[in-house]
Amino acid sequence: MAAVAPSQPADPGFAARTAAAFHAQGLMATIGGRLVAIEPGRCVIEADFHPGLTQHHGLFHAGVLTTLADNACGFAAMSLLPKGGEVLSVEFKVSFLRPAAGLVAVARGEVVKPGRTLSFCRADVVVRDAAGAETLVAAMTATMMAAAPEKR
Amino acid sequence: MAAVAPSQPADPGFAARTAAAFHAQGLMATIGGRLVAIEPGRCVIEADFHPGLTQHHGLFHAGVLTTLADNACGFAAMSLLPKGGEVLSVEFKVSFLRPAAGLVAVARGEVVKPGRTLSFCRADVVVRDAAGAETLVAAMTATMMAAAPEKR
Amino acid sequence: MAAVAPSQPADPGFAARTAAAFHAQGLMATIGGRLVAIEPGRCVIEADFHPGLTQHHGLFHAGVLTTLADNACGFAAMSLLPKGGEVLSVEFKVSFLRPAAGLVAVARGEVVKPGRTLSFCRADVVVRDAAGAETLVAAMTATMMAAAPEKR
Amino acid sequence: MAAVAPSQPADPGFAARTAAAFHAQGLMATIGGRLVAIEPGRCVIEADFHPGLTQHHGLFHAGVLTTLADNACGFAAMSLLPKGGEVLSVEFKVSFLRPAAGLVAVARGEVVKPGRTLSFCRADVVVRDAAGAETLVAAMTATMMAAAPEKR
Repeated sequence: MAAVAPSQPADPGFAARTAAAFHAQGLMATIGGRLVAIEPGRCVIEADFHPGLTQHHGLFHAGVLTTLADNACGFAAMSLLPKGGEVLSVEFKVSFLRPAAGLVAVARGEVVKPGRTLSFCRADVVVRDAAGAETLVAAMTATMMAAAPEKR
Repeated sequence: MAAVAPSQPADPGFAARTAAAFHAQGLMATIGGRLVAIEPGRCVIEADFHPGLTQHHGLFHAGVLTTLADNACGFAAMSLLPKGGEVLSVEFKVSFLRPAAGLVAVARGEVVKPGRTLSFCRADVVVRDAAGAETLVAAMTATMMAAAPEKR
Repeated sequence: MAAVAPSQPADPGFAARTAAAFHAQGLMATIGGRLVAIEPGRCVIEADFHPGLTQHHGLFHAGVLTTLADNACGFAAMSLLPKGGEVLSVEFKVSFLRPAAGLVAVARGEVVKPGRTLSFCRADVVVRDAAGAETLVAAMTATMMAAAPEKR
Repeated sequence: MAAVAPSQPADPGFAARTAAAFHAQGLMATIGGRLVAIEPGRCVIEADFHPGLTQHHGLFHAGVLTTLADNACGFAAMSLLPKGGEVLSVEFKVSFLRPAAGLVAVARGEVVKPGRTLSFCRADVVVRDAAGAETLVAAMTATMMAAAPEKR
């Protein structure tokens, strides 16, 4: 494994590259996802609550929390890749810890172990209430692959 | 564990109950999810491809496939519960096997091991092309809990 | 991905190669693991119950069931690789469905989606009683990587 | 969910209770597991390297790392339960980050979210070399259930 220090991205243009990929995702527009922060090995994505994002109790759907966390992990991994680097989600697991009742869902992803081929990432998802207080509602671990689809 | 045979649902009204929950989910309307089939211990949900559901290569986003699979597992579990029974997603893992290029994404969920408190479920997600051919693109295993949120 | 048909292993000597790796594992001797079957893309491993394999209720420990399933998945993946091919466990998830009370634990692994780099595998673990009846006690999904450690 | 503060265990005798369960596990004697620390919501378990714990490259087998992490999570969860409380592993996922070459494998488990029925736990597994340096080799997330087997 290349010892990529998170503070030294292989591509100085990592922020523009990941932002371009983020904005090319139709789903982010559909659910109102916002790319809040991208640093080497870290990414924060959030979405405001609205009735189009709910499960049947009127809370954030697990699928929305997962989508945000998947992107937070994926773009965290992408930020450390060389120019032109892309990522695929190989797999992820998400645990749902509490009902996701809040005004904003925030997914914070980080690369725990970068690799030339595979990166191991983690994301926490919190919901924020009107007072700005945060509650941890979900936790993801993910394997991301640096590869074009045909390489897999 | 109550030995619930999949062919003998505890609630004869299971189909209407799960359909009502499905249609109460704002996210299903947002992404165009359709409840295609609900049987005791089994559920099929699908969504047509459109540009609002994509990742940055223009294919179905992993978050969409996961949302469909989560619901397919959750409603499969709900179908076996007594009247009034609700389910929560405790956790799930999804593996992404191939690029999800197709016209329709179809998630087929089933309960492998029903339980009074926890049910172990699995879902396969395929994409269907214009000729009706299916390709397996994702596989989920999930733990579903029969509980009101406060019981957890 | 190379379209490797499970019935046409890339290496005709796959059985001897996987058996050699199995027998080189000190842990298999320690827990009494037996390589019962190896076919292209499939592997069965079992171990007899004894008090040295237990958790604190005197049943098979989850760690033993997992070890058998990990090997069943890993060797199933290895069976499809070209000559000299090795596998690493990237990750696995195991769900425990019932108490593992029985005389023999049997893990049956299979490759669901082989790949040049990554293979997606599944294993079921059953326990067998004195009458030969089997009970499903655990289910694994695993990502296996075809790679030497330094390539990762 | 009962708001159990990790520093206020429901059972003051938690340490003796978890230690008794640990020592009742035949597998811990078989692989040389040691209960190094047990605090409310935290547990550390380790095992020295020896050839009976290896995979086919002579390193710690993934099954050994998993066994240690499963116990570290399980006993961390058990430490927060009321008197007589037992835990079952519902499921866990483990990611393997680096080859596990070292003299000692150390699993450190903690309860991230305790619950009356389910607890969400995490464990990191490191290997320690002769100089005492540690390398992170595996990471687990686990769902533990407070229940007798028949309650599940």
